Amino acid sequence: MSIYSAKKPTEQEAALFKGHDILSTYQFTKEELEILMRTAGYYEEALVAQKRLYDMDGKVMAALFYEPSTRTRLSFETAMHRLGGSVITVAESAKNQISSTSKGETMHDTFTIVDGYADVIVCRSPQTGVPQIGAAAAEHPVINAGDGAGQHPSQALLDMYTIGKEKGGVDGLTVAMVGDLKNGRTVHSLIEFLAMYDTKLIFVSPDSLQMPADITAKTREKGIEIEETKDLKYAVSKADVIYMTRVQKERFASEEEYNAVKDDYIIDGALVKSFKPGAIILHPLPRVNEITVDVDEYPGAAYFRQARNGLPVRMAMIALVTGNVK
Amino acid sequence: MSIYSAKKPTEQEAALFKGHDILSTYQFTKEELEILMRTAGYYEEALVAQKRLYDMDGKVMAALFYEPSTRTRLSFETAMHRLGGSVITVAESAKNQISSTSKGETMHDTFTIVDGYADVIVCRSPQTGVPQIGAAAAEHPVINAGDGAGQHPSQALLDMYTIGKEKGGVDGLTVAMVGDLKNGRTVHSLIEFLAMYDTKLIFVSPDSLQMPADITAKTREKGIEIEETKDLKYAVSKADVIYMTRVQKERFASEEEYNAVKDDYIIDGALVKSFKPGAIILHPLPRVNEITVDVDEYPGAAYFRQARNGLPVRMAMIALVTGNVK
Amino acid sequence: MSIYSAKKPTEQEAALFKGHDILSTYQFTKEELEILMRTAGYYEEALVAQKRLYDMDGKVMAALFYEPSTRTRLSFETAMHRLGGSVITVAESAKNQISSTSKGETMHDTFTIVDGYADVIVCRSPQTGVPQIGAAAAEHPVINAGDGAGQHPSQALLDMYTIGKEKGGVDGLTVAMVGDLKNGRTVHSLIEFLAMYDTKLIFVSPDSLQMPADITAKTREKGIEIEETKDLKYAVSKADVIYMTRVQKERFASEEEYNAVKDDYIIDGALVKSFKPGAIILHPLPRVNEITVDVDEYPGAAYFRQARNGLPVRMAMIALVTGNVK
Repeated sequence: MSIYSAKKPTEQEAALFKGHDILSTYQFTKEELEILMRTAGYYEEALVAQKRLYDMDGKVMAALFYEPSTRTRLSFETAMHRLGGSVITVAESAKNQISSTSKGETMHDTFTIVDGYADVIVCRSPQTGVPQIGAAAAEHPVINAGDGAGQHPSQALLDMYTIGKEKGGVDGLTVAMVGDLKNGRTVHSLIEFLAMYDTKLIFVSPDSLQMPADITAKTREKGIEIEETKDLKYAVSKADVIYMTRVQKERFASEEEYNAVKDDYIIDGALVKSFKPGAIILHPLPRVNEITVDVDEYPGAAYFRQARNGLPVRMAMIALVTGNVK
Repeated sequence: MSIYSAKKPTEQEAALFKGHDILSTYQFTKEELEILMRTAGYYEEALVAQKRLYDMDGKVMAALFYEPSTRTRLSFETAMHRLGGSVITVAESAKNQISSTSKGETMHDTFTIVDGYADVIVCRSPQTGVPQIGAAAAEHPVINAGDGAGQHPSQALLDMYTIGKEKGGVDGLTVAMVGDLKNGRTVHSLIEFLAMYDTKLIFVSPDSLQMPADITAKTREKGIEIEETKDLKYAVSKADVIYMTRVQKERFASEEEYNAVKDDYIIDGALVKSFKPGAIILHPLPRVNEITVDVDEYPGAAYFRQARNGLPVRMAMIALVTGNVK
Repeated sequence: MSIYSAKKPTEQEAALFKGHDILSTYQFTKEELEILMRTAGYYEEALVAQKRLYDMDGKVMAALFYEPSTRTRLSFETAMHRLGGSVITVAESAKNQISSTSKGETMHDTFTIVDGYADVIVCRSPQTGVPQIGAAAAEHPVINAGDGAGQHPSQALLDMYTIGKEKGGVDGLTVAMVGDLKNGRTVHSLIEFLAMYDTKLIFVSPDSLQMPADITAKTREKGIEIEETKDLKYAVSKADVIYMTRVQKERFASEEEYNAVKDDYIIDGALVKSFKPGAIILHPLPRVNEITVDVDEYPGAAYFRQARNGLPVRMAMIALVTGNVK
């Protein structure tokens, strides 16, 4: 069975998730990943058929967003509403973000209290480790919606779902990862999942933003072939999936260094002509200028479909951890 | 049939709205305006009867409020809830408003993504044109809830609904518009609708805040009689409907200029005695001091009823554009 | 019948609440308090049984939080969702709080308008008296969720519910109140309720933060025995219930004064050994350091259970004032 298919989990499969937190991509076995993918497929079919769902009827999800992340928040909230449930929300603006000191203990108390209100807690934090503190405090499942430089498992899951769906499977694919591979939480997580399959990776980045050596080494040890290059045009001619990330000025040592490379990691209409036929472009969004607007028309420009896939994937996450796939 | 009555749209009438955006008052034909008014009347009857509605059951409305507008936001959200639907919200504070530069493209991306979550998108923006960008990006209908100096169609629609309901119709009415007619988005929109009927208009404003000449000229060309004056006492003795707006200090060239006229455009208990019998007072709210609190007791003080009429009017807008009047 | 039991109100009992505001602890008779407690018990049983409730189905609650109070807001919102209803929310950040001047009139207008949207309005304000202004303006019931130095009745109600539930009743209990008894809105309210029963009170505070003399005198007049001390160890050896509050630096005249006493009003694992057997600790939360984390393991550490009791208590408040206990 392909990674992308639509199938409700069996009782045994559902038991692997019920009552568990989703804190990191590292926690998933290949089997669990595929169960989640199929459950997402099942919910996507329900969405397409405009089926009214009652899986989370009468249930409450708490969305604790301690830094602004509008798209992720709206996606999780919509997922809960589409499952028939209700939502309570904390959505802090950038200026009201939790301070970086001494909040750990308070977070423990906050989660203990919110655990008394909600059936599932989704947490986004500018500080690494906050969802883990929450999971330790709460009896109900906690889903990490991004914790600083830490993890963002729902993004990696929807990336995998998108690849599986767009390409019909993952085995045999060449995936190019482009841009800031040093700081890219998203690509680090995605690599974990891709390495479960027979994939080949191409890392495309400026010298100062290369993939951390330990990740590259660890992935190679798993038998994954990795090529490193600065040549985007070469990479897109080989890749079935091109995963773009933002190259941010503030990551460079100097403005000169930034200016020297900033135009080397952009996909525009001209570059699309060099693509391997059928290649798709992914991007965690928001984009700034890494993909020019004219590329949106290209059939393989999958980044908006990718963002929308966040909905069925997050429905699957919520329904699985609460044991409510119906 | 009066403009105010309660009647569900026929299939043909509903088809005029289904899948369409509501971006401007200019887009409405008189027929469409009246269908919307009657649908609002239908929903008001349901509200009065405390009928539980399922018209938007299982559907999601996105409320994207990029500047604070609490009353408008709560009114739209309540409308969705009363129709049985769910709401996802972005409610920016004044300090987090979207900046005025270079956001157009990002807005396109944002609406494209939110379009994947929601069945209808309501947008408020400090920048003119943002809902239009949204409508171009989204397949689902977009409703403009106010875009800077641009349009605010739901306000004009509820104004018309209130006039029709309070006065039993619109033909034959004399409407006085008072205050800042130069910058008043609300009155500019309302004039469009009033000019569809046999109405007479009186514009009451200080010299520096007069109705723009092109609007006056265009409205006269439609055959509408317009009188311009600075004499509020005279105007209220002639008008069936008195539409008040705020006269804001910061609109004047100097404090002296403001102080010279600021008390000339206030309705108080004494002035009410000069009213034409049965006249009603409208105001888009919030008021500052344009209407003194003692006027609230006057039976024709319709501004709170007007605000409340926002609920059935917005229910009609949401249900019509999504094709869900049931 | 104990104060804590689970029982739906009779028609006559429900009539005491329907359509009434809840603005202050002072408004309650002992009978009304106990009806509310029993109704909360009824809802807690429904929560434990995971019963899907429709008591507020199709209804809308407005949560107007003009200062941040995340836990109280989430608790009220969850209560409404668990009753099957919908919520519209204003949640101001600290920086957007309503200013202290000249907003009274605007608040009147705001509540008049929101009253047209919602079936019940919950209001939190940094200014004393705002919920009262709201209640005067609105026809639907208003619930005070805290108004500055004024009242916070839902906190006192959940405190009583917790005492009744944890101790099996209130008569015969000795309650120690510890910390800032001068400024503690919570303890002032709670005393009103405790004085309805055969209780003994011990006030434990530094000299500068003593219980206001008029409250002490008034409570003694009701026949309640009150002991005042600075010796926390003595107090906890006598008390069945220890109600902790925060001792905030900024309440003291000087840092020296604060430093001299700050460690005298802390419960830690060592002090717990001096407790009267079976004693419970309450705290309105959030705590800072008044209760050390190791105390959480103590079976009588009831403060998180207390916070969670906010849910059934607020469900009872909402359902009772709207006449919807079903």
